[in-house]
Amino acid sequence: MIEVEVKVRAPHTEVEGRLEELGAVRVADKTQKDTYFAAPHRDFAQTDEALRVRHEDGEAYMTYKGPKLDEETKTREEHETQVGDAEEARSIFESLGFEEFGTVKKQRTVYEFDGATVTLDDVEGLGEFVEVELEAEGDAETEGARKSILKTLESLDLDPDDSVRDSYLELLHAD
Amino acid sequence: MIEVEVKVRAPHTEVEGRLEELGAVRVADKTQKDTYFAAPHRDFAQTDEALRVRHEDGEAYMTYKGPKLDEETKTREEHETQVGDAEEARSIFESLGFEEFGTVKKQRTVYEFDGATVTLDDVEGLGEFVEVELEAEGDAETEGARKSILKTLESLDLDPDDSVRDSYLELLHAD
Repeated sequence: MIEVEVKVRAPHTEVEGRLEELGAVRVADKTQKDTYFAAPHRDFAQTDEALRVRHEDGEAYMTYKGPKLDEETKTREEHETQVGDAEEARSIFESLGFEEFGTVKKQRTVYEFDGATVTLDDVEGLGEFVEVELEAEGDAETEGARKSILKTLESLDLDPDDSVRDSYLELLHAD
Repeated sequence: MIEVEVKVRAPHTEVEGRLEELGAVRVADKTQKDTYFAAPHRDFAQTDEALRVRHEDGEAYMTYKGPKLDEETKTREEHETQVGDAEEARSIFESLGFEEFGTVKKQRTVYEFDGATVTLDDVEGLGEFVEVELEAEGDAETEGARKSILKTLESLDLDPDDSVRDSYLELLHAD
Protein backbone atom coordinates (compact mmCIF):
# COMPACT_ATOMS: atom_id res chain seq x y z
CA MET A 1 0.00 0.00 0.00
CA ILE A 2 1.22 3.47 -0.93
CA GLU A 3 -0.12 6.69 0.53
CA VAL A 4 -0.64 9.41 -2.08
CA GLU A 5 -0.85 12.82 -0.41
CA VAL A 6 -1.09 16.43 -1.46
CA LYS A 7 -0.76 19.22 1.10
CA VAL A 8 -1.70 22.85 0.42
CA ARG A 9 -1.43 25.99 2.52
CA ALA A 10 -5.02 27.27 2.96
CA PRO A 11 -7.21 28.95 5.59
CA HIS A 12 -9.63 26.45 7.14
CA THR A 13 -12.89 28.42 7.45
CA GLU A 14 -13.89 28.19 3.76
CA VAL A 15 -12.66 24.61 3.34
CA GLU A 16 -14.66 23.48 6.36
CA GLY A 17 -17.74 25.20 4.92
CA ARG A 18 -17.27 23.37 1.60
CA LEU A 19 -16.71 20.03 3.36
CA GLU A 20 -19.94 20.43 5.37
CA GLU A 21 -21.89 21.43 2.20
CA LEU A 22 -20.56 18.41 0.32
CA GLY A 23 -21.53 16.05 3.16
CA ALA A 24 -18.01 15.14 4.32
CA VAL A 25 -17.88 13.29 7.66
CA ARG A 26 -15.80 14.80 10.47
CA VAL A 27 -14.10 11.76 12.02
CA ALA A 28 -11.50 13.12 14.45
CA ASP A 29 -10.14 16.10 16.38
CA LYS A 30 -6.64 15.67 17.78
CA THR A 31 -3.93 17.64 19.53
CA GLN A 32 -0.49 16.41 18.45
CA LYS A 33 3.01 17.19 19.72
CA ASP A 34 5.74 15.63 17.59
CA THR A 35 9.38 15.36 18.60
CA TYR A 36 11.84 14.68 15.77
CA PHE A 37 15.28 13.15 16.19
CA ALA A 38 18.60 13.56 14.39
CA ALA A 39 20.57 10.34 13.86
CA PRO A 40 24.16 9.87 15.06
CA HIS A 41 25.28 7.96 11.95
CA ARG A 42 23.58 9.70 9.02
CA ASP A 43 22.11 13.08 8.11
CA PHE A 44 18.33 12.69 7.83
CA ALA A 45 18.16 16.01 5.92
CA GLN A 46 20.35 14.39 3.24
CA THR A 47 18.74 10.93 3.29
CA ASP A 48 15.19 12.38 3.48
CA GLU A 49 14.27 10.18 6.46
CA ALA A 50 12.53 11.04 9.73
CA LEU A 51 12.26 9.53 13.20
CA ARG A 52 9.46 10.86 15.38
CA VAL A 53 7.82 10.33 18.77
CA ARG A 54 4.23 11.65 18.75
CA HIS A 55 2.06 12.60 21.74
CA GLU A 56 -1.61 12.51 20.72
CA ASP A 57 -4.34 13.15 23.29
CA GLY A 58 -2.66 11.07 26.02
CA GLU A 59 -1.38 8.37 23.69
CA ALA A 60 2.08 8.04 22.14
CA TYR A 61 3.49 6.64 18.90
CA MET A 62 6.90 6.21 17.34
CA THR A 63 7.30 6.50 13.59
CA TYR A 64 9.98 6.07 10.94
CA LYS A 65 9.53 7.65 7.51
CA GLY A 66 11.75 6.67 4.59
CA PRO A 67 12.81 8.81 1.61
CA LYS A 68 10.03 10.16 -0.61
CA LEU A 69 9.60 7.91 -3.66
CA ASP A 70 8.80 10.50 -6.33
CA GLU A 71 9.11 14.21 -7.04
CA GLU A 72 5.42 15.20 -7.01
CA THR A 73 3.84 13.69 -3.88
CA LYS A 74 4.86 12.80 -0.34
CA THR A 75 4.66 9.05 -1.04
CA ARG A 76 7.15 7.15 1.18
CA GLU A 77 7.78 4.05 3.31
CA GLU A 78 6.41 4.38 6.85
CA HIS A 79 6.60 2.24 10.00
CA GLU A 80 4.65 3.13 13.13
CA THR A 81 3.66 1.59 16.44
CA GLN A 82 1.99 2.84 19.58
CA VAL A 83 4.28 3.04 22.62
CA GLY A 84 3.16 2.79 26.23
CA ASP A 85 5.53 5.44 27.59
CA ALA A 86 6.71 8.27 25.31
CA GLU A 87 9.41 9.42 27.77
CA GLU A 88 10.96 5.94 27.85
CA ALA A 89 10.85 5.77 24.03
CA ARG A 90 12.67 9.14 23.88
CA SER A 91 15.21 7.95 26.47
CA ILE A 92 15.88 4.82 24.40
CA PHE A 93 16.62 6.86 21.25
CA GLU A 94 18.72 9.39 23.21
CA SER A 95 20.74 6.61 24.85
CA LEU A 96 21.38 5.22 21.35
CA GLY A 97 22.82 8.59 20.32
CA PHE A 98 19.80 10.12 18.58
CA GLU A 99 19.28 13.78 19.51
CA GLU A 100 16.08 15.81 19.74
CA PHE A 101 16.07 18.04 16.71
CA GLY A 102 12.74 19.87 16.72
CA THR A 103 9.14 19.86 17.85
CA VAL A 104 5.91 20.39 15.88
CA LYS A 105 2.65 21.17 17.72
CA LYS A 106 -0.68 21.20 15.94
CA GLN A 107 -4.45 20.88 16.13
CA ARG A 108 -5.66 18.33 13.57
CA THR A 109 -9.21 17.83 12.28
CA VAL A 110 -9.88 14.86 10.00
CA TYR A 111 -12.74 14.45 7.48
CA GLU A 112 -13.64 11.49 5.27
CA PHE A 113 -14.83 12.68 1.85
CA ASP A 114 -15.40 10.83 -1.42
CA GLY A 115 -13.12 7.93 -0.36
CA ALA A 116 -10.29 10.28 0.59
CA THR A 117 -8.99 11.52 3.95
CA VAL A 118 -8.97 15.32 4.25
CA THR A 119 -6.83 16.62 7.12
CA LEU A 120 -6.96 20.21 8.41
CA ASP A 121 -3.84 21.10 10.41
CA ASP A 122 -3.36 24.28 12.43
CA VAL A 123 0.39 24.25 13.07
CA GLU A 124 1.94 26.37 15.85
CA GLY A 125 4.21 28.95 14.22
CA LEU A 126 3.20 28.07 10.64
CA GLY A 127 -0.57 28.47 10.22
CA GLU A 128 -3.26 26.43 8.46
CA PHE A 129 -2.84 23.60 5.96
CA VAL A 130 -5.13 21.11 4.22
CA GLU A 131 -3.95 17.66 3.18
CA VAL A 132 -5.80 15.21 0.90
CA GLU A 133 -4.72 11.57 1.07
CA LEU A 134 -5.65 8.32 -0.71
CA GLU A 135 -4.26 4.81 -0.49
CA ALA A 136 -3.24 3.03 -3.69
CA GLU A 137 -1.56 -0.17 -4.87
CA GLY A 138 0.45 -0.38 -8.09
CA ASP A 139 1.25 2.28 -10.71
CA ALA A 140 -2.19 2.48 -12.37
CA GLU A 141 -3.98 2.92 -9.04
CA THR A 142 -1.41 5.49 -7.88
CA GLU A 143 -1.95 7.52 -11.04
CA GLY A 144 -5.72 7.24 -10.55
CA ALA A 145 -5.33 8.36 -6.92
CA ARG A 146 -3.39 11.45 -8.02
CA LYS A 147 -6.15 12.43 -10.46
CA SER A 148 -8.80 11.79 -7.83
CA ILE A 149 -6.95 13.99 -5.33
CA LEU A 150 -6.74 16.84 -7.84
CA LYS A 151 -10.53 16.53 -8.37
CA THR A 152 -11.10 16.65 -4.59
CA LEU A 153 -8.89 19.76 -4.29
CA GLU A 154 -10.96 21.39 -7.05
CA SER A 155 -14.27 20.66 -5.32
CA LEU A 156 -12.85 22.22 -2.14
CA ASP A 157 -11.82 25.35 -4.12
CA LEU A 158 -8.16 24.60 -3.40
CA ASP A 159 -5.37 25.23 -5.90
CA PRO A 160 -2.88 22.38 -6.46
CA ASP A 161 -0.34 25.10 -7.32
CA ASP A 162 -0.35 26.01 -3.60
CA SER A 163 0.98 22.50 -2.93
CA VAL A 164 3.70 22.21 -0.27
CA ARG A 165 6.02 19.21 -0.36
CA ASP A 166 8.18 20.14 2.65
CA SER A 167 7.32 18.71 6.05
CA TYR A 168 6.16 21.01 8.87
CA LEU A 169 9.53 20.42 10.54
CA GLU A 170 11.35 21.55 7.38
CA LEU A 171 9.07 24.58 7.06
CA LEU A 172 9.70 25.55 10.71
CA HIS A 173 13.47 25.24 10.29
CA ALA A 174 13.42 27.11 6.97
CA ASP A 175 12.08 30.22 8.76
CA MET B 1 16.80 3.32 41.61
CA ILE B 2 19.46 0.71 40.91
CA GLU B 3 18.74 -2.97 40.31
CA VAL B 4 21.18 -5.26 42.08
CA GLU B 5 21.10 -8.74 40.53
CA VAL B 6 22.97 -12.00 40.86
CA LYS B 7 22.40 -14.85 38.39
CA VAL B 8 23.57 -18.43 38.96
CA ARG B 9 23.39 -21.54 36.81
CA ALA B 10 21.27 -24.06 38.75
CA PRO B 11 18.67 -26.78 38.14
CA HIS B 12 15.18 -25.56 39.07
CA THR B 13 13.61 -28.57 40.80
CA GLU B 14 15.43 -28.19 44.13
CA VAL B 15 15.24 -24.38 44.14
CA GLU B 16 11.48 -24.48 43.53
CA GLY B 17 11.14 -26.96 46.39
CA ARG B 18 13.09 -24.65 48.73
CA LEU B 19 11.05 -21.59 47.61
CA GLU B 20 7.75 -23.42 48.35
CA GLU B 21 9.06 -24.59 51.77
CA LEU B 22 10.12 -21.04 52.66
CA GLY B 23 6.71 -19.63 51.68
CA ALA B 24 7.82 -17.68 48.57
CA VAL B 25 4.93 -16.43 46.40
CA ARG B 26 4.85 -17.49 42.73
CA VAL B 27 3.77 -14.30 40.94
CA ALA B 28 4.24 -14.96 37.20
CA ASP B 29 4.83 -17.53 34.46
CA LYS B 30 5.92 -16.09 31.11
CA THR B 31 7.12 -17.19 27.71
CA GLN B 32 9.61 -14.67 26.30
CA LYS B 33 11.23 -14.32 22.90
CA ASP B 34 13.86 -11.58 22.78
CA THR B 35 15.38 -10.18 19.59
CA TYR B 36 18.66 -8.27 20.03
CA PHE B 37 19.98 -5.69 17.60
CA ALA B 38 23.47 -4.61 16.53
CA ALA B 39 23.94 -0.85 16.05
CA PRO B 40 25.21 0.69 12.79
CA HIS B 41 27.40 3.30 14.53
CA ARG B 42 28.94 1.55 17.52
CA ASP B 43 29.83 -1.97 18.65
CA PHE B 44 27.50 -2.93 21.51
CA ALA B 45 29.88 -5.76 22.47
CA GLN B 46 32.55 -3.09 23.13
CA THR B 47 30.26 -0.48 24.70
CA ASP B 48 28.39 -3.10 26.80
CA GLU B 49 24.97 -1.86 25.66
CA ALA B 50 21.93 -3.76 24.40
CA LEU B 51 18.83 -2.99 22.35
CA ARG B 52 16.05 -5.54 22.51
CA VAL B 53 12.48 -6.13 21.31
CA ARG B 54 10.70 -8.64 23.58
CA HIS B 55 7.61 -10.73 22.80
CA GLU B 56 5.96 -11.81 26.05
CA ASP B 57 2.69 -13.75 26.00
CA GLY B 58 1.12 -11.65 23.23
CA GLU B 59 2.58 -8.34 24.43
CA ALA B 60 5.71 -6.58 23.19
CA TYR B 61 8.34 -4.30 24.75
CA MET B 62 11.43 -2.44 23.58
CA THR B 63 14.36 -2.02 25.93
CA TYR B 64 17.72 -0.26 26.05
CA LYS B 65 20.36 -1.38 28.55
CA GLY B 66 23.41 0.74 29.23
CA PRO B 67 26.89 -0.40 30.30
CA LYS B 68 27.15 -2.32 33.58
CA LEU B 69 28.19 0.03 36.39
CA ASP B 70 30.44 -2.26 38.44
CA GLU B 71 32.43 -5.47 38.16
CA GLU B 72 30.44 -7.71 40.51
CA THR B 73 26.76 -7.34 39.62
CA LYS B 74 24.63 -6.67 36.54
CA THR B 75 23.66 -3.17 37.74
CA ARG B 76 23.01 -0.83 34.75
CA GLU B 77 20.85 1.96 33.29
CA GLU B 78 17.68 0.65 31.66
CA HIS B 79 14.85 2.20 29.61
CA GLU B 80 11.80 0.22 28.59
CA THR B 81 8.34 0.78 27.15
CA GLN B 82 5.57 -1.44 25.87
CA VAL B 83 4.99 -1.26 22.10
CA GLY B 84 1.71 -1.98 20.33
CA ASP B 85 3.23 -3.77 17.34
CA ALA B 86 6.55 -5.62 17.73
CA GLU B 87 6.99 -6.09 13.96
CA GLU B 88 6.66 -2.33 13.37
CA ALA B 89 9.16 -1.65 16.18
CA ARG B 90 11.61 -4.08 14.53
CA SER B 91 11.03 -2.46 11.12
CA ILE B 92 11.75 0.97 12.59
CA PHE B 93 15.11 -0.17 14.02
CA GLU B 94 15.99 -2.05 10.82
CA SER B 95 15.15 0.99 8.68
CA LEU B 96 17.48 3.03 10.94
CA GLY B 97 20.32 0.60 10.17
CA PHE B 98 20.13 -1.64 13.26
CA GLU B 99 20.46 -5.34 12.40
CA GLU B 100 19.00 -8.36 14.12
CA PHE B 101 21.88 -9.96 15.94
CA GLY B 102 20.43 -12.84 17.95
CA THR B 103 17.36 -14.31 19.60
CA VAL B 104 16.86 -15.66 23.14
CA LYS B 105 13.82 -17.82 23.94
CA LYS B 106 12.94 -18.78 27.49
CA GLN B 107 10.31 -19.88 29.99
CA ARG B 108 10.40 -17.58 33.03
CA THR B 109 8.86 -18.19 36.46
CA VAL B 110 8.96 -15.36 39.00
CA TYR B 111 8.74 -15.62 42.80
CA GLU B 112 8.65 -12.91 45.46
CA PHE B 113 10.66 -13.93 48.53
CA ASP B 114 11.90 -11.97 51.53
CA GLY B 115 11.59 -8.63 49.66
CA ALA B 116 13.57 -9.92 46.68
CA THR B 117 12.51 -11.09 43.22
CA VAL B 118 13.66 -14.63 42.39
CA THR B 119 13.50 -15.47 38.68
CA LEU B 120 13.79 -19.02 37.30
CA ASP B 121 14.71 -19.02 33.60
CA ASP B 122 14.75 -22.08 31.34
CA VAL B 123 16.67 -20.79 28.31
CA GLU B 124 16.48 -22.60 24.96
CA GLY B 125 19.96 -23.92 24.14
CA LEU B 126 21.47 -22.95 27.53
CA GLY B 127 19.52 -24.61 30.35
CA GLU B 128 18.32 -23.45 33.75
CA PHE B 129 19.29 -20.31 35.69
CA VAL B 130 18.16 -18.60 38.89
CA GLU B 131 18.40 -14.84 39.35
CA VAL B 132 17.94 -12.91 42.62
CA GLU B 133 17.21 -9.19 42.33
CA LEU B 134 16.71 -6.26 44.71
CA GLU B 135 16.19 -2.54 44.16
CA ALA B 136 18.41 -0.08 46.01
CA GLU B 137 19.14 3.64 46.18
CA GLY B 138 22.56 5.02 47.12
CA ASP B 139 25.82 3.23 48.02
CA ALA B 140 24.86 2.06 51.52
CA GLU B 141 21.58 0.53 50.32
CA THR B 142 23.31 -1.08 47.33
CA GLU B 143 25.88 -2.71 49.63
CA GLY B 144 23.04 -3.86 51.92
CA ALA B 145 21.18 -5.28 48.90
CA ARG B 146 24.27 -7.27 47.87
CA LYS B 147 24.55 -8.81 51.34
CA SER B 148 20.84 -9.57 51.40
CA ILE B 149 21.06 -11.28 48.00
CA LEU B 150 23.95 -13.47 49.22
CA LYS B 151 21.80 -14.48 52.22
CA THR B 152 18.88 -15.33 49.93
CA LEU B 153 21.17 -17.44 47.71
CA GLU B 154 22.33 -19.29 50.83
CA SER B 155 18.79 -20.05 52.00
CA LEU B 156 18.06 -21.46 48.52
CA ASP B 157 21.17 -23.70 48.75
CA LEU B 158 22.73 -21.79 45.85
CA ASP B 159 26.45 -21.02 45.61
CA PRO B 160 27.41 -17.41 44.72
CA ASP B 161 30.57 -18.91 43.17
CA ASP B 162 28.30 -20.28 40.40
CA SER B 163 27.43 -16.66 39.54
CA VAL B 164 27.23 -15.80 35.83
CA ARG B 165 27.67 -12.18 34.75
CA ASP B 166 27.31 -12.71 31.00
CA SER B 167 23.91 -12.18 29.40
CA TYR B 168 22.06 -15.12 27.84
CA LEU B 169 22.83 -13.62 24.43
CA GLU B 170 26.56 -13.55 25.26
CA LEU B 171 26.41 -17.12 26.59
CA LEU B 172 24.63 -18.32 23.42
CA HIS B 173 27.20 -16.63 21.18
CA ALA B 174 30.14 -17.90 23.28
CA ASP B 175 29.18 -21.52 22.49
